[in-house]
Amino acid sequence: MTKQHTKRDLPKKSENISDWYNRVVMLSELADYGPARGTMIFRPYGYRVWELMQAFMDRLIKEKGVDNAYFPMFIPMSLLEKEEEHVEGFSPELAVVTHGGGEELAEKLAVRPTSETIMYDSYSRWIQSWRDLPVLINQWNNVVRWEKRTYLFLRTSEFLWQEGHTAHATHDEAWDYVLWAMDMYKETYEKMYALPGIVGKKSASEKFPGALETLTFESLMPGGKALQSCTSHDLAQNFSVPFDITFLDREGEQQHVWQTSWGFSTRSMGGFILAHGDDQGLVIPPAVAPYQVVILQVHETDEVATVVNNLASELKTAGIRFTIDNREGESLGYKINKWELKGVPVRVEIGSKEATEGKLTAVRRDNGEKSTVAQDNAAVGINELLQTIQQNLYNRALQFQDDNTHVVDDYEEFRRVMDHERGFIRAMWCEDASCEASIKEETKATTRCLPLDAQEEDGKCVYCGKPARHRWYFALAY
Amino acid sequence: MTKQHTKRDLPKKSENISDWYNRVVMLSELADYGPARGTMIFRPYGYRVWELMQAFMDRLIKEKGVDNAYFPMFIPMSLLEKEEEHVEGFSPELAVVTHGGGEELAEKLAVRPTSETIMYDSYSRWIQSWRDLPVLINQWNNVVRWEKRTYLFLRTSEFLWQEGHTAHATHDEAWDYVLWAMDMYKETYEKMYALPGIVGKKSASEKFPGALETLTFESLMPGGKALQSCTSHDLAQNFSVPFDITFLDREGEQQHVWQTSWGFSTRSMGGFILAHGDDQGLVIPPAVAPYQVVILQVHETDEVATVVNNLASELKTAGIRFTIDNREGESLGYKINKWELKGVPVRVEIGSKEATEGKLTAVRRDNGEKSTVAQDNAAVGINELLQTIQQNLYNRALQFQDDNTHVVDDYEEFRRVMDHERGFIRAMWCEDASCEASIKEETKATTRCLPLDAQEEDGKCVYCGKPARHRWYFALAY
Repeated sequence: MTKQHTKRDLPKKSENISDWYNRVVMLSELADYGPARGTMIFRPYGYRVWELMQAFMDRLIKEKGVDNAYFPMFIPMSLLEKEEEHVEGFSPELAVVTHGGGEELAEKLAVRPTSETIMYDSYSRWIQSWRDLPVLINQWNNVVRWEKRTYLFLRTSEFLWQEGHTAHATHDEAWDYVLWAMDMYKETYEKMYALPGIVGKKSASEKFPGALETLTFESLMPGGKALQSCTSHDLAQNFSVPFDITFLDREGEQQHVWQTSWGFSTRSMGGFILAHGDDQGLVIPPAVAPYQVVILQVHETDEVATVVNNLASELKTAGIRFTIDNREGESLGYKINKWELKGVPVRVEIGSKEATEGKLTAVRRDNGEKSTVAQDNAAVGINELLQTIQQNLYNRALQFQDDNTHVVDDYEEFRRVMDHERGFIRAMWCEDASCEASIKEETKATTRCLPLDAQEEDGKCVYCGKPARHRWYFALAY
Repeated sequence: MTKQHTKRDLPKKSENISDWYNRVVMLSELADYGPARGTMIFRPYGYRVWELMQAFMDRLIKEKGVDNAYFPMFIPMSLLEKEEEHVEGFSPELAVVTHGGGEELAEKLAVRPTSETIMYDSYSRWIQSWRDLPVLINQWNNVVRWEKRTYLFLRTSEFLWQEGHTAHATHDEAWDYVLWAMDMYKETYEKMYALPGIVGKKSASEKFPGALETLTFESLMPGGKALQSCTSHDLAQNFSVPFDITFLDREGEQQHVWQTSWGFSTRSMGGFILAHGDDQGLVIPPAVAPYQVVILQVHETDEVATVVNNLASELKTAGIRFTIDNREGESLGYKINKWELKGVPVRVEIGSKEATEGKLTAVRRDNGEKSTVAQDNAAVGINELLQTIQQNLYNRALQFQDDNTHVVDDYEEFRRVMDHERGFIRAMWCEDASCEASIKEETKATTRCLPLDAQEEDGKCVYCGKPARHRWYFALAY
């Protein structure tokens, strides 16, 4: 893999973010293209990021009392067709299995684009009484929504995600879970990916096919486009009616359950790559970094080797993820470039000087700052550095979001911002789908969300001038 | 789900193990049938067992330096066809995607039955120099091998597994990994599922399509059939030649890599269910039990509730998995039956007597023994019980295996054993595929393996009487 590590071929992020993105993902060995169109390979370095995020989120999910399970990925077409909006929304994106075991199938099978239909078919058999509620189930799995062209992490035919599916006796209880899921996603974004964003509800035309209401988390990326990688849906009784999911309530009345579903996908990884990386390559937030520290031995002496070994054992004890790069045939400069490209948060260089003075030289990836850490209790000093970096990355991204959020009340200004600065536009909208469609056609900007804490205002729609009550977020989208 | 918990419908295991198995899996809510033929649903109670096993094995895999990754599940047919034996072996079992995104595909895609071909296509691009070796990659994923009829866990079209794929500079190093994988599987079987078994190599006709050699772990089940749920393959250079996976060695010579692959699937769950269960239902080994302890409150007094709460907090601190069953509308007797059916290792009953005397009554699921545990430091006493149960289940299964392993030197005796006692037969075999095929046709028994530590003997083939050097294991197989 030697030749892939060089930064020569990396375009400047500021000059061509799209080229930069594709190259940095490939060169850093996060991912690669799969042989079938629209597919990608999560290489070990990239998959580890997902695993670290997954461990964090899985704990939050379990603490809420939601259990993991696994449902089949093949969904008979007849099941998929039970909820009308749902099948209409997903039909154009389906991968279809027509042959199995050498024979043509009597009923074609869709590879799941999401699992509402196959899960709710079971829920209708499993749920009988109010005592069986709530049902709280999550899956970590792979889903397929057909894409002709791969945009690594951001748009792929097959992607990885979790999908939670709950059923409740009341709408209020269901809504609490819709909100809880978004809180959990926001916490994960902030604490793991060091990314802020806006939580809000989707417009009618942008919501999930089959949902009454969809909540989203929208992050603003350099280049000024918004990224959506998780949503939480209030399904109301839209599925429980066609799937006949009923329960006897405490009064002995037959009722339909109230449902939610919520998902968070590997698209989210595109977010931290785009947001934090720079012209030197990736900058991985410490919380999801496969290696939080890389140790480079500058001189080949016994004294230096001893310091390296001591540091390694101290980091191991402290639970800090690290690697020692002693690969043959590469210069120190080459290695420094390589690990900058791969975005390791802290690089520790140890040479004769450090060995003699009882110190370590630590270099931060986020801002290039060099600092000196005492060899005694080095893990404490390095841990502090890691926390500082995580916080700094979040603060920078929040500042970027603030700097690129425009309050706009005039449509000419709206067009100008979308043509030039881009970013989030906060504008009044009358909530008429035709205005939304016209804005999209003319500026490519879509409604991203209405923040949950939005205040009512007396205003006029930025497009048609008719009365409007809320200021929505608009942006170009990935 | 109330009605599914009753044991009324459970046939006796000793009378009809196949019916017992299907019913106990359904009634205990480990699993359910999926809507498409050959598919199954891993319900939360069953999936949790897999998660616990997975956490244990994933740690062993990472400790060995093997990294997790994720490759696409869609394999272009042309890739699958590169290794001749491999495609011949898997073709009859493939699920094929012919349509995607509303169009017929130019090249059909197989849903992975295993990932050798798609992974090695990448390996050929990633590996260039001896410095890139070894490559050590594992995946946890879903695979499809078409089945018309579902046998829950044991035979399903889609199943879950891990598949490890390594590439090395020498055959010796590769072979070490083939052996290491089997050791890891054996450790997992013993420590998690409380199951013994025989490690050995497969005959030429039973090995993996494309492997030079296949190692297997064979467990003997009640009813006398063998279960194979994991294998480890020495692929030699059988894939690296057609896939052109080469590296420059230290001397500057171009060489083909040596490869291994090894997998362990959800079939293994059928093993612990069959081996340990009894007429009352499941008996789940403590190491993989979703709940290691169920607490039943016998009397509804404050004193009893206090004891229950104290125990709960102590168990939580000790990391013991438990549940308190306070479901309304069920009698104590009903609950006892339910948790016996679900195979929870220890049931703790707390009533007024226990509250007064400062003791707990603990009932072991594996043998029904009641014992008394002091309320002070109850977690210590319960932990000891759990360890005793785990060991007892293993010992019982080992005894069963020993009692049902028959050394046979005469073919009439071979037939008689397979017609009546069943179990393992250890018999000399000349290693000629025609004898193996005749034995299979006449008795349904197949060669299971030749133990790795088998001694050479001077003997005669149990079928043809010609000279034979080794005593192989034979059995009927799931």
